[in-house]
Amino acid sequence: MTRTFDIAVIGATGSVGEALVQVLEERDFPLANLHLLASGDSAGRSVAYKGRNLRVRALDTFDFSSVRLAFFAADPAVTRASFEAVQAAGCALIDLSGALPVAQAPRVVPEVNPESLEALAAPYYLSSPAAPVVAISLALAALRPLLDLRRVTVNASLAVSSRGREGVSELARQTAELLNGRSFEPRLFDRQMAFNVLAQVDAVDADGHGAFERRVSDELKGLLAIAGLHVSVACQQVPVFFGDSLSLSLQSGSAVDVAKARAALQAAAGIEFIEAGDFPTAVGDAVGQDAVYVGRVRGGLDDTSELNLWIVSDNVRKGAALNAVQLAELLIKHYL
Amino acid sequence: MTRTFDIAVIGATGSVGEALVQVLEERDFPLANLHLLASGDSAGRSVAYKGRNLRVRALDTFDFSSVRLAFFAADPAVTRASFEAVQAAGCALIDLSGALPVAQAPRVVPEVNPESLEALAAPYYLSSPAAPVVAISLALAALRPLLDLRRVTVNASLAVSSRGREGVSELARQTAELLNGRSFEPRLFDRQMAFNVLAQVDAVDADGHGAFERRVSDELKGLLAIAGLHVSVACQQVPVFFGDSLSLSLQSGSAVDVAKARAALQAAAGIEFIEAGDFPTAVGDAVGQDAVYVGRVRGGLDDTSELNLWIVSDNVRKGAALNAVQLAELLIKHYL
Repeated sequence: MTRTFDIAVIGATGSVGEALVQVLEERDFPLANLHLLASGDSAGRSVAYKGRNLRVRALDTFDFSSVRLAFFAADPAVTRASFEAVQAAGCALIDLSGALPVAQAPRVVPEVNPESLEALAAPYYLSSPAAPVVAISLALAALRPLLDLRRVTVNASLAVSSRGREGVSELARQTAELLNGRSFEPRLFDRQMAFNVLAQVDAVDADGHGAFERRVSDELKGLLAIAGLHVSVACQQVPVFFGDSLSLSLQSGSAVDVAKARAALQAAAGIEFIEAGDFPTAVGDAVGQDAVYVGRVRGGLDDTSELNLWIVSDNVRKGAALNAVQLAELLIKHYL
Repeated sequence: MTRTFDIAVIGATGSVGEALVQVLEERDFPLANLHLLASGDSAGRSVAYKGRNLRVRALDTFDFSSVRLAFFAADPAVTRASFEAVQAAGCALIDLSGALPVAQAPRVVPEVNPESLEALAAPYYLSSPAAPVVAISLALAALRPLLDLRRVTVNASLAVSSRGREGVSELARQTAELLNGRSFEPRLFDRQMAFNVLAQVDAVDADGHGAFERRVSDELKGLLAIAGLHVSVACQQVPVFFGDSLSLSLQSGSAVDVAKARAALQAAAGIEFIEAGDFPTAVGDAVGQDAVYVGRVRGGLDDTSELNLWIVSDNVRKGAALNAVQLAELLIKHYL
């Protein structure tokens, strides 16, 4: 008989939390009891799971000793506020908020660095990296054996769903107002998001870098573990509801064999490779899919040691919910 | 008394052509007669100039010997088809279509390489570079004295107006259909453009590079004239009506003084510098403006020889019409 597990999902009413519950159902995760939790006003709502409506309960009265594993899909502040209780209860944790330092909860993408789980001990705390990092690390892990990778320049065009449901509804509202010729006061974003590109996705530090840009760079370097690798990241918010669009320029220490690079991506698990001429897009390809789509794989215009590529990925599903569930599957298979 | 000139604008009914006529009016260009021309169905329409409606005439019967200077703001094919007639007539030409090779019509941005006009002789054939090149070259020319510039990586998010009026109306149509819950057949773009990012803006060659990407790289290198400079370009089409959004990562041969770079951009003619913390956008800042807006000037996350910046510019006005009129002003001042 299959072992089953009591699981908690914190942030169950958010877009990532809801996708998590959906992925748990689709992959027939061996659940005994599924506890859906949220803080504040969201408690009391319900979320569908296997044909039933599960009631979302208040996080602040939850006893973590009643579950074997907790997914944190809410704000970083929620993870931080609950972490002591999780530790005291002894349950495993998979954080999707980026709240915990790497030393406490290492970033893992099952296709990229599953071996990093081996160094851990019970009760097992893991982090699912930022959504663009999941997608990019998959592609770069496939290319790593071929390239003497020295530098990765990432331009990330992030969907408004990276800001949760409020991002989605605000883009819809602004677009409708503009098409109807009405003016509006921006909410959530500090200016017009419809038909516009915003040059940063969060506040910048004294050096001008956004916190999310730092996170993407640090997490990518941690996952790839290539000595001396430079990772430059610029993040923009684009008027797209779901799916991140990632433009990468790579520099190798020697000439790149583009045909071999294409073949390696084509053969990689978790990647859908699109031949040159065609290209994948967020809306048309990535959304709702488990795969990361990679296309426009080409050399440099004037440099044989350059490789360029284009990646699209469902930021909510593959970039967050699915990777977290894949991590949970690894944990229950080998460790819990 | 000021000398005045007979001028022709070919492609006068297009968005760039109409902006050209508007800029000629705003800058009080010393015009005697203004001939507005278009091919095919657009002839017969009229365009406003200084309170009058000027009739647009058919290009194929036009006598270029009746003008001193012709602006070509139509398709490259139109420039190529008319070039012999222009040569036979002996009038000067400013091409905005990119149709003519550099040897025949050098690319010039007045703030960047005005000295390249000196090598020319009558009748003077010039090209206004691609819109992103005008904006990027302005910023890089300001930085050139400070940096030992080795590599420029450009990620260009192009407005749909780079595809002319049809691009604008197609984005509006698709957006309205989607918001009303209706399906649609894409026109012009080969797939959904609304709420989506397209990974290329034209067909790609056997190596996977788009023609416009090659043009941007070649023109930038020509304008900057820095020996051994690598320029990597990726162009995307974004659901924005007007204004290009350009994300640049620069590599210098030595450590970059970011404060000095900011000061140089702040002091540069034609650039509006935005301090860190804030940032410019296409819709909110660039559209309708003569200046190129530069912000998010920051070093590398992990590399002191890196400099990153964000540029927005009105692709139709500053990137095309205004630069062409500035070239014409230089020509009439010094050469014609």
